[in-house]
Amino acid sequence: MTLFAHRHLLGIEPLAAADIETILHLAERFLEINARPIKKVPTLRGKTVINLFLEASTRTRTSFEIAAKRLSADAVNISGSASSTVKGETLLDTARNLDAMAPDVVVVRHAQAGSAQMLANEIKAAVVNAGDGAHEHPTQALLDCSTIRAHKQRIAGLEVAICGDIRHSRVARSNIWALTKLGARVRVAAPRTLLPPGLADMGASVHERIEPALEGADVVMMLRIQKERFGGSLFPNTREYSRYYGLNARRLELAKPDAIVMHPGPINRGVEIDPAVADGPRNVILDQVARGVAIRMAVLYLLAGGEAAE
Amino acid sequence: MTLFAHRHLLGIEPLAAADIETILHLAERFLEINARPIKKVPTLRGKTVINLFLEASTRTRTSFEIAAKRLSADAVNISGSASSTVKGETLLDTARNLDAMAPDVVVVRHAQAGSAQMLANEIKAAVVNAGDGAHEHPTQALLDCSTIRAHKQRIAGLEVAICGDIRHSRVARSNIWALTKLGARVRVAAPRTLLPPGLADMGASVHERIEPALEGADVVMMLRIQKERFGGSLFPNTREYSRYYGLNARRLELAKPDAIVMHPGPINRGVEIDPAVADGPRNVILDQVARGVAIRMAVLYLLAGGEAAE
Amino acid sequence: MTLFAHRHLLGIEPLAAADIETILHLAERFLEINARPIKKVPTLRGKTVINLFLEASTRTRTSFEIAAKRLSADAVNISGSASSTVKGETLLDTARNLDAMAPDVVVVRHAQAGSAQMLANEIKAAVVNAGDGAHEHPTQALLDCSTIRAHKQRIAGLEVAICGDIRHSRVARSNIWALTKLGARVRVAAPRTLLPPGLADMGASVHERIEPALEGADVVMMLRIQKERFGGSLFPNTREYSRYYGLNARRLELAKPDAIVMHPGPINRGVEIDPAVADGPRNVILDQVARGVAIRMAVLYLLAGGEAAE
Repeated sequence: MTLFAHRHLLGIEPLAAADIETILHLAERFLEINARPIKKVPTLRGKTVINLFLEASTRTRTSFEIAAKRLSADAVNISGSASSTVKGETLLDTARNLDAMAPDVVVVRHAQAGSAQMLANEIKAAVVNAGDGAHEHPTQALLDCSTIRAHKQRIAGLEVAICGDIRHSRVARSNIWALTKLGARVRVAAPRTLLPPGLADMGASVHERIEPALEGADVVMMLRIQKERFGGSLFPNTREYSRYYGLNARRLELAKPDAIVMHPGPINRGVEIDPAVADGPRNVILDQVARGVAIRMAVLYLLAGGEAAE
Repeated sequence: MTLFAHRHLLGIEPLAAADIETILHLAERFLEINARPIKKVPTLRGKTVINLFLEASTRTRTSFEIAAKRLSADAVNISGSASSTVKGETLLDTARNLDAMAPDVVVVRHAQAGSAQMLANEIKAAVVNAGDGAHEHPTQALLDCSTIRAHKQRIAGLEVAICGDIRHSRVARSNIWALTKLGARVRVAAPRTLLPPGLADMGASVHERIEPALEGADVVMMLRIQKERFGGSLFPNTREYSRYYGLNARRLELAKPDAIVMHPGPINRGVEIDPAVADGPRNVILDQVARGVAIRMAVLYLLAGGEAAE
Repeated sequence: MTLFAHRHLLGIEPLAAADIETILHLAERFLEINARPIKKVPTLRGKTVINLFLEASTRTRTSFEIAAKRLSADAVNISGSASSTVKGETLLDTARNLDAMAPDVVVVRHAQAGSAQMLANEIKAAVVNAGDGAHEHPTQALLDCSTIRAHKQRIAGLEVAICGDIRHSRVARSNIWALTKLGARVRVAAPRTLLPPGLADMGASVHERIEPALEGADVVMMLRIQKERFGGSLFPNTREYSRYYGLNARRLELAKPDAIVMHPGPINRGVEIDPAVADGPRNVILDQVARGVAIRMAVLYLLAGGEAAE
C-alpha cells in the first residue's frame, strides 16, 4: 500500500504533510458518499472495528461507529464502565485479548497519554488514537483541517487562533501539529495556568490574553472549558473566565471580517463561547462534525486495508 | 411520498385516522417478515437510525434496534449514561451534532415532554418520539391498536378501559388519541391523585374506581405503577393500591367474557396486575411486544424514505 | 438437523462426547474464516442474536458479538445496567418479552445458577448459557478443549490440573465435565474453603495443595481469583494466596516439560499467576481467546439453524 505509509494513527506529530493531504483528499470522497440517499459502500465488508472507549464520549464514538458501518465493517463498542478493566485487568491485557479476536482496527480513547502508542506496540490490529489524555486526538485535527480548507480554500498562510484550556487539550496539540505542518501560523491564548510548556517549540505563538490572538485571525478555534474544573486552583469561576476569555461578538470583530469560528464540542454556552457566536453566521461547528465522519471513514479505510477492495 | 404525509412521528394527536391505518396496514406485512426464517429485507440499506435514549429502557430500545436491523439500516445506540449531555451540553446541541452525521432517523426517548417536537424543529433527520415525559409514546399506542384489531377484528365501537397511573402515563395519552380517532370509546380509571386534568376533553370518560371502567369492556389495558412512587404523597402503599386498583380474576369478570388484557410492560406482578391474570388465557401482552417490532419497522420505513427502494 | 441434537447449550453436563466433538470440529472451520482478510460468511443472515448480559463482562460479550456478526447475524446487546430488570421485572418476564421479538438465539449471562435453564424452559429462541452463577460456562470449556487439542493433538489420556477458586468457578465445572467426557483426567487444587462438595463425583481428583495437582500435568489451568473476595472469610490476603497457590516458574517445573498454561481471563497478575508465567512461552492464553470466537460461531451456527443456509 503506497497511499499511506503508517500502520496506525497515533497522532499528528509523526505524520508528514503528505500523509495529512492523503487523508483530507480521501475524506472528500467519503463526504460525498455521506450525502447520498444510500450512504454505504462495501469497502470494509468482513473487517472488524473495535471502539474501545475507556473514557466517556458520545460524539466521537458515534462518529467512528457510523464511519465503520457506512464502510460495511462490523463495529463493536466497548465502553469504560462495562470493561473488565474494572476487574483489575491491565489495559494491555484487555487489548491483547481483544486483538486475539482478530479485529482489523482498534479505536482507543483513554485518559492516559501514550496509551494508544502502548497498544500499537503490542497488538496486531491497526490502532487509531481517539484521544489519549492531554496528548493527541488526531482525527479531530484532521476534521478541523478539512473544515478550514473547505471554507478558506487553503491552510498555508492562514492565521489560526486556538483559545481556551490549552493545557488539558489534546485537540489543541493535534491541531498545532497539523496546522503548522500544512503551513498555517498558530497562536494560542489562555490564562497562564492553562498554558503548558513547550508550545513555542511546537511552532505556536503564545498569548496570555485572547485579544492579541484574535487580531487579524482567519480562523478562531475555541476550546471547551470543563466546568468541573472551576472552583479548583486553575481559574476562579465561570463568569470571570467568560469575561476575559470567552468569545463574544465584540471580540470576534478583532478577527478578519470573514474569519470562521470553530469548536470541537461539546459547547459550554456562555462560558467559552457566547450563544450568539456559537449559532452565528461565521460558526462552522456542524461542518466540523459532518466532516468528522468522512475523516474517520478515510482513516479506517487506509488502516484496514480497504485498498484491497478497490 | 403519498403514503404518509408526515416527516416525523411525534405523537398520535397530530395524526389523522388514515395515517394510523397506513401504519397498521404496513405493519401486517412486516409482521409476516418477522415470522420468516430469514427475517431481513434490504429496504433501508444505507440508512442510519440513531436510538437516542436519554431515559433508561431495554425493551423499547431493543425493539427499535431490531426493527432497524431487520430493514438493513445501520442502527447506532446512544444511552443516557454515556451521553455527553452529562458534560452539560444541551439536548438541542447533542441533537444538532448527531444530525450533522447525516442520520436518516433519530429515535428519541427523553424525560421531558415536548423534547421530540423540539428536536424535530431543529434537525434534518426524521424524529420518532419513543416517549417524552408524560406526553406521548406513539409507537406504543400503534402497537396496542394493532394488537386490539388482531384480536377483535375492529377498533371502532369497542369499549376500552385504561387503568392505573394515568397521570404519569404517555402510554395512556397516546392510546386515548389513537383509540378515539379510530372510533373506540375509552374509559380511564385511577385514584384521583393519578388523574390529570383534560382527559374528558381528549374524549375519555373518567372513573375514580376501577369497577365501572371494567364493566362491559372489550379491552382492559393496565398501566405500570412505578413502585418508587409509593411512599410518596400520591398513594399510600403497594398493597392498598393493589387491593383497590389491581386487576385480578374476580374484577376481570366485570369485563366482557371475551375481553383481552393488555399491559405495556414491564409488569409489576402483584401490584397493578395479578400473576394469574398476567399469565392467563386472555392476556395478549406478548402479542403487543411482537407487534411492536413490526410497527416500528413500518414507522422507520415510512419516515426513512423506504419507498424509494421499492 | 442431525448435526447437533440439542436446542440449547445450557451446559456441558448434558452433552455427549460426540456433541462436543461436533462443535470442536466445526470451530476449526470458523477459525480458518477468522484468519481470512474478509472475515465474514452469510450463514446467519436474517437471524437475530440477543446478548443478554445481566452480569458485567467485556470479553465474553464481545466474543459472542463478533461471532454473530462474522456469521452475518444481527447482534443486539443488552447489559445489566440498562436492563428493565432494574425496574423490578423478573428475568423470566424480560426473557419472554425479548422472545416475542423473535430472536433466534438468546445468549445469557446471569449471576444466578440455573437461570439459562429457566429461560430455555420458557422461550422459543435457542438459549446459550454464557455463564450462570457458579454453575456452568460451556463455551469457555469448549474453547479450552479446542485449545488443548490444538497444542496436544488429543485430549484423552491427558492430565489436566485446574487450580484456584474452584468453588465460585463455573469455568472449572464446565471444564471438569468436558475434559472427563473426552477422556482426560482432571485434578483440582484449591484451599479447602474454595473447594465445593461433589467434585469427586464429577470425576476429578481433589487436592488442597497445588503441588500434587501440578505434578506431571500436561495442562495447567489457573482460575481467576476475585480480589474483592480477599479480606472476607475465605482466605487471608492476596500475598498469602499467591505464595501458596500462585503459579510461578518454579512450581510450573513440577508439570511435564511441555505442559501448557491456560487461564480464562481476566488475569490478576501476581495473584494467581506470575507475570513471567502468564507471558511465558508455555502460555496459550491468547489462543484460548482466538478459539473462543470460533467456538461461539460454531455454537450459534448449530443452534440458529445455520444448516438451512447450506
